[in-house]
Amino acid sequence: MARAWHLKSRPSGMPNQENFDLKDVELPPLKDGQVHVRNLWLSVDPYMRGRMNDVKSYVPPFQVGEPLEGGAIGQVIESKADGLQAGDLVQHMSGWRDEAVLSAHAANKLPNLGFPPEQFLGVLGVTGATAYFGLLEVARAREGDIVFVSAAAGAVGSVVVQIAKAKGMTVIASAGGAEKCDWVRSLGADQVIDYKAAPILKGLAAAAPEGIDVYFDNVGGDHLDAAFALARNNARFAICGMIEGYNDPTPKSFKFIQRIIAARIMVKGFLVLDYYPRIADFYAEMGPWIAAGVVKSRETIVDGLDKVPDAFLGLFSGENTGKMLVRL
Amino acid sequence: MARAWHLKSRPSGMPNQENFDLKDVELPPLKDGQVHVRNLWLSVDPYMRGRMNDVKSYVPPFQVGEPLEGGAIGQVIESKADGLQAGDLVQHMSGWRDEAVLSAHAANKLPNLGFPPEQFLGVLGVTGATAYFGLLEVARAREGDIVFVSAAAGAVGSVVVQIAKAKGMTVIASAGGAEKCDWVRSLGADQVIDYKAAPILKGLAAAAPEGIDVYFDNVGGDHLDAAFALARNNARFAICGMIEGYNDPTPKSFKFIQRIIAARIMVKGFLVLDYYPRIADFYAEMGPWIAAGVVKSRETIVDGLDKVPDAFLGLFSGENTGKMLVRL
Repeated sequence: MARAWHLKSRPSGMPNQENFDLKDVELPPLKDGQVHVRNLWLSVDPYMRGRMNDVKSYVPPFQVGEPLEGGAIGQVIESKADGLQAGDLVQHMSGWRDEAVLSAHAANKLPNLGFPPEQFLGVLGVTGATAYFGLLEVARAREGDIVFVSAAAGAVGSVVVQIAKAKGMTVIASAGGAEKCDWVRSLGADQVIDYKAAPILKGLAAAAPEGIDVYFDNVGGDHLDAAFALARNNARFAICGMIEGYNDPTPKSFKFIQRIIAARIMVKGFLVLDYYPRIADFYAEMGPWIAAGVVKSRETIVDGLDKVPDAFLGLFSGENTGKMLVRL
Repeated sequence: MARAWHLKSRPSGMPNQENFDLKDVELPPLKDGQVHVRNLWLSVDPYMRGRMNDVKSYVPPFQVGEPLEGGAIGQVIESKADGLQAGDLVQHMSGWRDEAVLSAHAANKLPNLGFPPEQFLGVLGVTGATAYFGLLEVARAREGDIVFVSAAAGAVGSVVVQIAKAKGMTVIASAGGAEKCDWVRSLGADQVIDYKAAPILKGLAAAAPEGIDVYFDNVGGDHLDAAFALARNNARFAICGMIEGYNDPTPKSFKFIQRIIAARIMVKGFLVLDYYPRIADFYAEMGPWIAAGVVKSRETIVDGLDKVPDAFLGLFSGENTGKMLVRL
């Protein structure tokens, strides 16, 4: 018997505990080509909020009464699949639960590179790849650029800051509260704006008197509008997330969006999965950066399967610094 | 003595006659390298509204008490410049007036291709080039794409419709009122939405049940939001103008901007002047199209120098079908 978090009801606006239900589930008997996995680490990510709505998107919505899904690191406890054996660590998408039976095709064995396994959910995983391809491919950020990144104390933002510094860019970052700002500064950001202390437009205008060449957006709303206001000619915006709007159906208004014309701004939304065919580029640079301490990993860890909704909900109140993970 | 329209005061919101002043100006004596030109055709364009604000942009703002500028076709009446002689037709930027003395470098002699000279302010000029490069280069629209173009009865929009059809695209267009919609349909648009008859989101959803690959934006606001709502994966938006906001300082709100992420939408503002180094590409395709009647030119003509502000103000109430021109 396994235990898995189910979607009990669809949230309207901010989700809460009532939307989730932890239930026993019968695991099916192991078939050829499958593995039985016990999860060690679960990922919670802002994008999961979108899957809680009944809206067709790049991934199907979660279904009411059905188990939730998400990134996870598990250990194989029984295998009927070639190439995987008991004890192997694997990454897969059957998170939000303690155990799972899954096809070996859906389980990627972690390479033994000497990194802690949970980093494959963070700097060495989807999070790191999102930062890497968003900054360097989508926004085409280059040495010398002035880069603005929002939610810079978050999982993706904190990696963007470090990659940008490793590549010789000037980094202007925003985060909420003095403690997070101090941490972002310790990652090498040249200017850090506490968006809780003053309107972000004012903060960005002061921090970037010459304007910005690149904006890496995790927030949307006022942050995006401030980026429109301060964009230099031919600025490029990579839109990774708009967390400000995930739980708030009020349409966001933009005072400076007209600058997109005169400043020839390019704005592009992206999903990291489109860049997976080039994931080797990411590992080739990120592995050595982490090994050398150029890119540091930081996690906010919550313990216990019963705490997964708490960890997820904490993403929207900014309780995480770095990557939010649940340890089982 | 010449007569020239001056900026009397900066408008707040919608401009009106009070912002303009027609005054006599002394023309300076003709120097070597200069020509004296009598204007035949003056262009009025929505972008001029931006130059009436005291805001630094890609062109300097008009100055209060100083003459206005804009595209014009004139005839040389006296020349002290090599290569130009009395009788030559030239295109230049000293519009909003009847006569001007200007450097020969600022006057481009019209090629004698058999087209009416005023077309060099329209389909064969900045207007046509804006449509051409915006659609084909900025939005990278290709055969088979579903293209949505707003203000399709306007100067640029009507050329976009015709280029898109010439290139084998499906065209969904918006215009205001039944008469304009009929004309846009006559240009070959597959679907025409009367945005005055119903909300544009509703109209676009009905006209483009499969969504859109390209949006050529002349309007901004609700039109842009509808395009976000209906964009297919990897859609490209070329932002040419946002006339809805030029006289209205209320920030526009966007309900569907979050779709930029899941649908990987690319949004890019542009100025046609950046494409001038490749203007020969435009002439090479547009000349034959016009000669063959594939692209038709239409102008709304206002007569007389005293009517220039009327013509300009008419752009914002939609009084033009096709290119708005003043004939002197």
